[in-house]
Amino acid sequence: MEELIIVKVGGSVINEEQELNDFLDVFVSLKGKKVLVHGGGKIATEVGKLMGIESKFHEGRRITDLDTMRLVTMVYAGLVNKTIVSKLQSKTSNGVGLTGADGNLILSEMRKKDGVVDYGYVGDITQINTRYLMDMLENDMVPVIAPITHDGAGNVLNTNADTIASEVAIALSVHYEVVLNYCFELGGVLKDINDPASVIEKLGYLEYLDLHNGGVISAGMIPKMDNCYKAIQAGVKNIYICNAKDLKSIINDKKPKGTLLYND
Amino acid sequence: MEELIIVKVGGSVINEEQELNDFLDVFVSLKGKKVLVHGGGKIATEVGKLMGIESKFHEGRRITDLDTMRLVTMVYAGLVNKTIVSKLQSKTSNGVGLTGADGNLILSEMRKKDGVVDYGYVGDITQINTRYLMDMLENDMVPVIAPITHDGAGNVLNTNADTIASEVAIALSVHYEVVLNYCFELGGVLKDINDPASVIEKLGYLEYLDLHNGGVISAGMIPKMDNCYKAIQAGVKNIYICNAKDLKSIINDKKPKGTLLYND
Repeated sequence: MEELIIVKVGGSVINEEQELNDFLDVFVSLKGKKVLVHGGGKIATEVGKLMGIESKFHEGRRITDLDTMRLVTMVYAGLVNKTIVSKLQSKTSNGVGLTGADGNLILSEMRKKDGVVDYGYVGDITQINTRYLMDMLENDMVPVIAPITHDGAGNVLNTNADTIASEVAIALSVHYEVVLNYCFELGGVLKDINDPASVIEKLGYLEYLDLHNGGVISAGMIPKMDNCYKAIQAGVKNIYICNAKDLKSIINDKKPKGTLLYND
Repeated sequence: MEELIIVKVGGSVINEEQELNDFLDVFVSLKGKKVLVHGGGKIATEVGKLMGIESKFHEGRRITDLDTMRLVTMVYAGLVNKTIVSKLQSKTSNGVGLTGADGNLILSEMRKKDGVVDYGYVGDITQINTRYLMDMLENDMVPVIAPITHDGAGNVLNTNADTIASEVAIALSVHYEVVLNYCFELGGVLKDINDPASVIEKLGYLEYLDLHNGGVISAGMIPKMDNCYKAIQAGVKNIYICNAKDLKSIINDKKPKGTLLYND
């Protein structure tokens, strides 16, 4: 099977123009078919402040009332997505910006209220239109996916970008040898949160569970890592948690950097 | 040649949820291949107020500084575009939201400062990727185009939606028999601005010039109508300026309503 690179990018890389430019230079240099999934939470929080919309979170996930849904649709699908796509075009990469509503790409259903917390307009993915993604990839287009899905009943919903990346990776792993890369500020998963050099090179599922139970994995990383192992168990070949600067080494030079997750 | 319907919608139809729903019900009922081009200026002005960005205009066109460019990218490409696309999907129409940056759909160049007025980040169209539009149309997708283009150098630019509609119509008229429809609040072009019933049924170019010179055509309509006659002279078959409610009669029943523009 042909290789497919899926990159999730978020955090400060998106906020700072120079960092974003540097990241996109690396991204376009990656050989082969590619998909980019982006976040934009920090910009949404900033724009929300200007608009008088307070950002509220529960366990790191945004509570999305109707005003917040309008806000994130503007920021993720508008500002962030089109900034990235226009920059990709200037670097001769044929980016196409998408939400789950476009071409019915990602269907979701609104998360059930569990009695404890009402996340509001948050969507859990139920279906991915792999045919549409593959048509774009076969035509040398680069899908750039914003973390917005739709419920098929006329509503857009807020969906975590990490989850979109892993679910898209799972859906496409039937057709491609998928390498999924989560890029963030650090060099990888750290053994010691206070030591940036303590990057774990490889992390199997059983070892991860040990670290998790031992309290070594930070709370913010847990949903991300759970997503990753789910994806690996569902057929995604390799997953790297890495710094954006290391993508070229990982993909083009086949030299592992960051943390490689694997099943065991 | 096969018929292609291009509809430009703007004004209050986009602002009011019920009006938008009614319009989209009519739009999805139109038979054959379709493209939708939308505005969103009133919502941009409202959101701008919340964000402390004042809307400035010169002869009806928005002056677009960097903050305003970010604002209209959020509102047009994010909020308005994805609201329309998700609603189309719920009506089983396979909408795909696009700006000019996506798939390099519409290239433009920043308008030259003419010494009188600096429009800022406003783009004049230089190229349209008809191949990409045709690929979507042949796959039963419905392109939904926001009035944002790009300059190929990494910048998004603000481009008038009426102009996008007429330029897309001209570009596609080589491949389809294009019927272009400008929908707005009135019933058509009025002989007497104070009498909504004074709709002109047909308006040839020479008669238009007479009305224009006689001061009958209102200032706001002049750029729209100039665009229209340019499109007709360039090969677009029929152009209607009409109320959204009359689209079905015009397209499906072939009963002209509103004002039909023609070349003479």
